[in-house]
Amino acid sequence: MSTSPSRFAAFVRGKAFTNFILTVVFLNAIVIGFQSYPEADAAYGSLLRGLDLLFLAVFTVEVILKLTVYRTSYFKDGWNVFDFIVVAASLLFMSSSFVSVLRILRVLRVLKTVSSIPSLRRIITSLFMAIPTIGSIALLMIIVFFIYAVIGTTYFAGISPDYFGDLGKSLITLFQIATFDDWANIYRPIAEVSPLSLLYFVTFIFIAVFVMLNLVVGEIVNNAANIQEDVADIEKEVSEVKADTSEIALLRSEVRELKLLLLEERQRRHDAAV
Amino acid sequence: MSTSPSRFAAFVRGKAFTNFILTVVFLNAIVIGFQSYPEADAAYGSLLRGLDLLFLAVFTVEVILKLTVYRTSYFKDGWNVFDFIVVAASLLFMSSSFVSVLRILRVLRVLKTVSSIPSLRRIITSLFMAIPTIGSIALLMIIVFFIYAVIGTTYFAGISPDYFGDLGKSLITLFQIATFDDWANIYRPIAEVSPLSLLYFVTFIFIAVFVMLNLVVGEIVNNAANIQEDVADIEKEVSEVKADTSEIALLRSEVRELKLLLLEERQRRHDAAV
Amino acid sequence: MSTSPSRFAAFVRGKAFTNFILTVVFLNAIVIGFQSYPEADAAYGSLLRGLDLLFLAVFTVEVILKLTVYRTSYFKDGWNVFDFIVVAASLLFMSSSFVSVLRILRVLRVLKTVSSIPSLRRIITSLFMAIPTIGSIALLMIIVFFIYAVIGTTYFAGISPDYFGDLGKSLITLFQIATFDDWANIYRPIAEVSPLSLLYFVTFIFIAVFVMLNLVVGEIVNNAANIQEDVADIEKEVSEVKADTSEIALLRSEVRELKLLLLEERQRRHDAAV
Amino acid sequence: MSTSPSRFAAFVRGKAFTNFILTVVFLNAIVIGFQSYPEADAAYGSLLRGLDLLFLAVFTVEVILKLTVYRTSYFKDGWNVFDFIVVAASLLFMSSSFVSVLRILRVLRVLKTVSSIPSLRRIITSLFMAIPTIGSIALLMIIVFFIYAVIGTTYFAGISPDYFGDLGKSLITLFQIATFDDWANIYRPIAEVSPLSLLYFVTFIFIAVFVMLNLVVGEIVNNAANIQEDVADIEKEVSEVKADTSEIALLRSEVRELKLLLLEERQRRHDAAV
Repeated sequence: MSTSPSRFAAFVRGKAFTNFILTVVFLNAIVIGFQSYPEADAAYGSLLRGLDLLFLAVFTVEVILKLTVYRTSYFKDGWNVFDFIVVAASLLFMSSSFVSVLRILRVLRVLKTVSSIPSLRRIITSLFMAIPTIGSIALLMIIVFFIYAVIGTTYFAGISPDYFGDLGKSLITLFQIATFDDWANIYRPIAEVSPLSLLYFVTFIFIAVFVMLNLVVGEIVNNAANIQEDVADIEKEVSEVKADTSEIALLRSEVRELKLLLLEERQRRHDAAV
Repeated sequence: MSTSPSRFAAFVRGKAFTNFILTVVFLNAIVIGFQSYPEADAAYGSLLRGLDLLFLAVFTVEVILKLTVYRTSYFKDGWNVFDFIVVAASLLFMSSSFVSVLRILRVLRVLKTVSSIPSLRRIITSLFMAIPTIGSIALLMIIVFFIYAVIGTTYFAGISPDYFGDLGKSLITLFQIATFDDWANIYRPIAEVSPLSLLYFVTFIFIAVFVMLNLVVGEIVNNAANIQEDVADIEKEVSEVKADTSEIALLRSEVRELKLLLLEERQRRHDAAV
Repeated sequence: MSTSPSRFAAFVRGKAFTNFILTVVFLNAIVIGFQSYPEADAAYGSLLRGLDLLFLAVFTVEVILKLTVYRTSYFKDGWNVFDFIVVAASLLFMSSSFVSVLRILRVLRVLKTVSSIPSLRRIITSLFMAIPTIGSIALLMIIVFFIYAVIGTTYFAGISPDYFGDLGKSLITLFQIATFDDWANIYRPIAEVSPLSLLYFVTFIFIAVFVMLNLVVGEIVNNAANIQEDVADIEKEVSEVKADTSEIALLRSEVRELKLLLLEERQRRHDAAV
Repeated sequence: MSTSPSRFAAFVRGKAFTNFILTVVFLNAIVIGFQSYPEADAAYGSLLRGLDLLFLAVFTVEVILKLTVYRTSYFKDGWNVFDFIVVAASLLFMSSSFVSVLRILRVLRVLKTVSSIPSLRRIITSLFMAIPTIGSIALLMIIVFFIYAVIGTTYFAGISPDYFGDLGKSLITLFQIATFDDWANIYRPIAEVSPLSLLYFVTFIFIAVFVMLNLVVGEIVNNAANIQEDVADIEKEVSEVKADTSEIALLRSEVRELKLLLLEERQRRHDAAV
């Protein structure tokens, strides 16, 4: 009976258990998908709700098993905390009739798809890590949007209140322009009243495109910079090697001297013999 | 008469035959193009159908000739299987009056353009090979779309039933938003009822753009990674070379010792002679 | 008087003359720009036409001077042929009243802007040179468009005659979809009748994006491939160098033998002396 | 009292002071943002105007302190000149009732956000520096737009006066087409009258995309070119090293000769001894 707990822990940490949970997560996602169709919900509503309860039971057991195995270290992983909150909240509000709470829980249960697939966990984590590196470009973008929103609200609020009525509306309109979506239909009515608005729209589009380009090109150029550093390292080592090999010439001249010495010796001995 | 079969095989495998089939494939494509114009079909309908039959006869002969030459190895190439099925089905349903079957066969005969050009065959094959490498990004994209579709259906189904009525509609709307097509006209009516929808749209656009970027940048960075590996290999070899060349210094000191030995010897002999 | 022709040739080939012609070309472009405004044409019409004649006179003199200097080699440069045709046609149809001919000549005179700036000539020439390298991708794109146009016309001609009525209309619609312009408004009415059209639109968009990506990434990857080749060359040379330096170890052992020989000798002589 | 001025200068140049000014700049931006909402302006108008005056006082003190510390070198930095003008103009027109002047000043005060953050100053400066390197592509783009605008105005002014009525309208329409925004709705009505317009739109879109690609790819390829140069340098050095190491073979043969000499000597002496 001494191996029983470790066998049990190996089972919970093992691949079979992870894959089983993954399958349930996907089935749950499919059921949630079906529930969004009013006809399906009308015809198979009670079946779908029954499956929902079954899946919740599975997830509850999963949390309990993992808590038993990992104990306090369970909560050290943010993804586990997320799983725990989703299950706990689902149990708490199970018989609740607050529609908005139930809606949020439904969405959170879909988010469990991400927390259950290790490769996705890693991608999401690496995305969060990448945020600081694009920070200065993001800050520049925010300031550019803010400046253009103030200019837009100042000059176009009267002409086009729907798009530039206040700072919030201007910011959304600028985001729309940055995606090139239907911007000409926003611009043309304004241009009829204020022809200088051309400068506003064209410069903003150029800056927005430029910032986008920098985000794309930036990552590639970063990579290239790494290669460049490696290449520079090699360049330094190769020139050191070159310096070393120049010793060979010196060495060769010394060997030549040696040979001359030996030949002289032989000649002298020959002379002496004669 | 012994060389006849090999000559015949050489002809079927040869460039002249391939080019002839390619020409017929292109003529067939042009005829199919013409048939799509109701006026052309009305005026030259019987001529076009006659050409169609002629081309089918040529393709039938092509299949028979290739079967004679390649025998069982003919079916080892997936493209040949495709050609065979198209010709066989065209012959089978030639006098059929099922419009839908005839339509599918017309499209399949255009697809023969791809199977007849070797460089295109290779491109298509390499595309299929590339699928697994972009697999994890594709999986992430599917899950992101699913999560946003569930959120969209949950919160916006009542406000905008045309775009977020059920999971299917939401998925299509999200694909439309990801291409930046007319998304603001979907967003604005929803934003009037639910101001928080701004977060939904903006985060989705950022994630969609980010995933797109990763697909573009990914391939380039992969390439850069290959270069980086090669560069790292060189770096290692260069430092090994450097270690080797440090032997030169040792060697030189040994040669110097040798010279000293010889000089000592000579001095001693000189002393002895005196 | 013997240096006079060479001085004259130097003047025609010189920078001052080129810059003068360039200035006239830009002034001509500005005048053509003004002529497009009905009000400006009404108010200053005769002045603008006068300037037009003056510029034509300058271009005529330019052609004559260059012909005198370069003689038959003048026509070896395609850009000169272009200049000659524009001036000759302008003189021929000067008093013509064919509006369409005058319109074409007006456009051609603007194209002279390109032929007058050497750096632009080079860019255009290099663009024409780049066509064959993107040839296979372009061919694939044409075939993809053709196949989808045939499928679209076959299945959607009845549902959406404006967009898929015949092969030509389908091709234009596909080009519109490839630019993501308003594609959802084309798709939605078709989807109501034929739900499977989703597959048609989504696969086409993915293929179009993929081809675009290949055009962008292709050029970059080509560049990377060049670097990779250079790096591979270095790798080979470095390993050859490494093979060479392994000779050093052999060399050192031979030098050591030499030293032993000398020491033995000395010992023997010493023994003999004793 | 001798250290007092240097302490004061250190304070003005120091981080604490910069961060304080930065905070005020951000608060000012928030207040300007609030002022764009008519309701907020109605309710808290006098408070917001009071804060505005307070911030202006802070910026005035900042300019005076910096002038005292940096003296004439203050105006050598363009950003300082900008700060000075904004503050001076704000003080001059403080009690003015010219709405347009006050609007411009409000926008300029937001632009101070950029001049106050060192990292943004650097980004903006580097952007201005990058302009000459993309100069030839920009010139080509301007000429392409001009040529297409002349063609468009010449042929489509009568068909679509809203989009191609004069050169200015055509240029804006072309910019809209270059962003793929709703271009098909401009094209289709024109295509019904003039089918050849297809060539105009398709070639323009291809050229616009190509120029965009060149701007993206250009920067990356530039980087790759730098790596390529470094790699070429290494290649040269490695082959020089290789030439040097080929000396080793020569050296070894010389050492071998030496050994033979010694062995001959020994043999001779041995023979002599016998």
